[in-house]
Amino acid sequence: MKHALSETGQKHLDQLLDRIMKDAGYMLGYPATKTLDFSPLYPFLGFLVNNIGDPFASAGCFRLNTHDMECEVIRWFAKILNADDDVWGYVTSGGTEGNMYGLYLARELFPNGMVYYSEDTHYSVSKILRMVNARSIMVKSRPDGEMDYEDLAATIAIHRDVPPIIFANIGTTMKGAVDNLDTIKAILKDKAIARYYIHADAALSGMILPFVDNPQAFDFSAGIDSISISGHKFPGAPMPCGVVLARRSLVNRVARSVEYIGTNDTTVLGSRNGVTPIFLWYIIHTFGEPGFRDMVRKCFSVADYAIKKFSQKNLQAWRHENSVTVVFPRINEEVLQKWQIALQGGNAHLIAMPHVTIEKVDEFIEELTA
Amino acid sequence: MKHALSETGQKHLDQLLDRIMKDAGYMLGYPATKTLDFSPLYPFLGFLVNNIGDPFASAGCFRLNTHDMECEVIRWFAKILNADDDVWGYVTSGGTEGNMYGLYLARELFPNGMVYYSEDTHYSVSKILRMVNARSIMVKSRPDGEMDYEDLAATIAIHRDVPPIIFANIGTTMKGAVDNLDTIKAILKDKAIARYYIHADAALSGMILPFVDNPQAFDFSAGIDSISISGHKFPGAPMPCGVVLARRSLVNRVARSVEYIGTNDTTVLGSRNGVTPIFLWYIIHTFGEPGFRDMVRKCFSVADYAIKKFSQKNLQAWRHENSVTVVFPRINEEVLQKWQIALQGGNAHLIAMPHVTIEKVDEFIEELTA
Repeated sequence: MKHALSETGQKHLDQLLDRIMKDAGYMLGYPATKTLDFSPLYPFLGFLVNNIGDPFASAGCFRLNTHDMECEVIRWFAKILNADDDVWGYVTSGGTEGNMYGLYLARELFPNGMVYYSEDTHYSVSKILRMVNARSIMVKSRPDGEMDYEDLAATIAIHRDVPPIIFANIGTTMKGAVDNLDTIKAILKDKAIARYYIHADAALSGMILPFVDNPQAFDFSAGIDSISISGHKFPGAPMPCGVVLARRSLVNRVARSVEYIGTNDTTVLGSRNGVTPIFLWYIIHTFGEPGFRDMVRKCFSVADYAIKKFSQKNLQAWRHENSVTVVFPRINEEVLQKWQIALQGGNAHLIAMPHVTIEKVDEFIEELTA
Repeated sequence: MKHALSETGQKHLDQLLDRIMKDAGYMLGYPATKTLDFSPLYPFLGFLVNNIGDPFASAGCFRLNTHDMECEVIRWFAKILNADDDVWGYVTSGGTEGNMYGLYLARELFPNGMVYYSEDTHYSVSKILRMVNARSIMVKSRPDGEMDYEDLAATIAIHRDVPPIIFANIGTTMKGAVDNLDTIKAILKDKAIARYYIHADAALSGMILPFVDNPQAFDFSAGIDSISISGHKFPGAPMPCGVVLARRSLVNRVARSVEYIGTNDTTVLGSRNGVTPIFLWYIIHTFGEPGFRDMVRKCFSVADYAIKKFSQKNLQAWRHENSVTVVFPRINEEVLQKWQIALQGGNAHLIAMPHVTIEKVDEFIEELTA
């Protein structure tokens, strides 16, 4: 029997591609981007490449994986995140899996621990907390999006009987704010708390801060225990993915040997995409650290251009230090929707990702203020 | 600055592809297959297609998604799974996410519920149970891989104060056994238990049983509440993915409105691969139900051929009704490893997936018994 797609089916596919091509031209509000032509990697899609199991303990019977390349990717991230050798990680399906891994690990280590996270934290985190059944308290945010440290200190003070698990935003979703890890650690020290856990949600900024001259404290050298970074955001992988890294000594406590795949079941997901590590590896090796420094610098300059342009139109726009997220007032919803701009309360934001040009910014701001 | 991969980098990529091509020729032990040439869909990889959010409640600002196609895929599965209109679902990253969703939903509905699962259940389930922090008891299995129903009945009898959550295997990983839902429901009825939940892990067999003449009871008409099926197993999608479906009335209890994406945060993962729904849609529309019936029939005939061939070599091999998994004794480990055969205790198995030909079976059994 010969199988083929019908003409109607093909037409349906063509229409979908047309729509996506059109919408891709109006993408200013989400941290989605395209940095490279990935077609040299398409031959890998001719096989079911599945990275099931722990990439660093690959000894199973199933060999159609890219565990070696995945380990190279993780080692590269370990280096830019100032991790020493006591670090482990894997390529995730995206930010949610990375944050879920961090919070699962923290809850395993401190079953009665209390998770503290700010109200500017990504909406998915309260779902994750519910899934992993962890105790949690939402802390207030400051108007600029950073955690309200006074509220954190006061809240921790009345729960000193249980270990704190800090869910720190390294670049909040709406305002790009970075929670101050030094301040947080000072609060913990002031309360004489020795046992705690810090997870960093660095979805977007985790690939920006390593490439700036004066980064905020955010990586393993700043005392974090785990971190989640998206691969489809700043690096521009063509499908959702990410990395999670955590201190290996902590990770070993949740590992467990499994005969079936002959390896450790340490990852949240079992079957895992084996092509996304190749995309990430390709991006890393094509740009290299100098390429990322260059890319980050260009994005900052586009962001600053946008702020100046808004100001010329009498609209107050701003960005945090080292952030590509430009916050501006929520006006003219029709235009915001056309350009796929995310909204929250009275705020809107434009994210100066690598694909965002000065010309696009001009076109958008002219339409917005027309 | 012009960015390009180095010569060493390109060589590394080429070597990886060579190894994967070679290993793909020796794949008899895992339910991985390749059914179609997916290159007509590669243009979609030119964009970051992200299916973030609930596909059936798509109303967010972010438009680079394939939610429409995802809904078509879920409706097709709802039809072959005999679901009425009270069903909801989405395309997952694979079996783990689908099983996690089902167990999360069950635990939300019955926070003090007790999960019962057999010892032949996939190893990832105990990790999921730990992640979602659900109470659970592992029930014994019969030698053929089905749940030991006497043990189930006896175990439920002493925990009648809490609602049972049955994790049913619709095709176990090692032996392809299908837990008997009618027997399970009879046990629940006998104990006068009215409040319970049944999740079906139909990773492989969920795409086989709808296309046979006498399927075991396994779908919504048999009283299940949720089901997880893999897309990279029988359908042969080129990267890990799957579907999860659940009764909508149950799902609505865990849904929650979120302003940021302007939709409901009902899925386990946030950012989700937008290309895998296109792969599944393409497979479904290329083969259609007659194509799948044909494919299943051919796989059964290859499985039966293998059993006969093993028997000619004085090796006892067998398969369950409607299963493509041929169980045989664990011998000659070197050859088993070459052919990527999964092992457990004294058993090995060959899975007669669509790419497995009679010639491959001959070659393998000759080597095994040489």
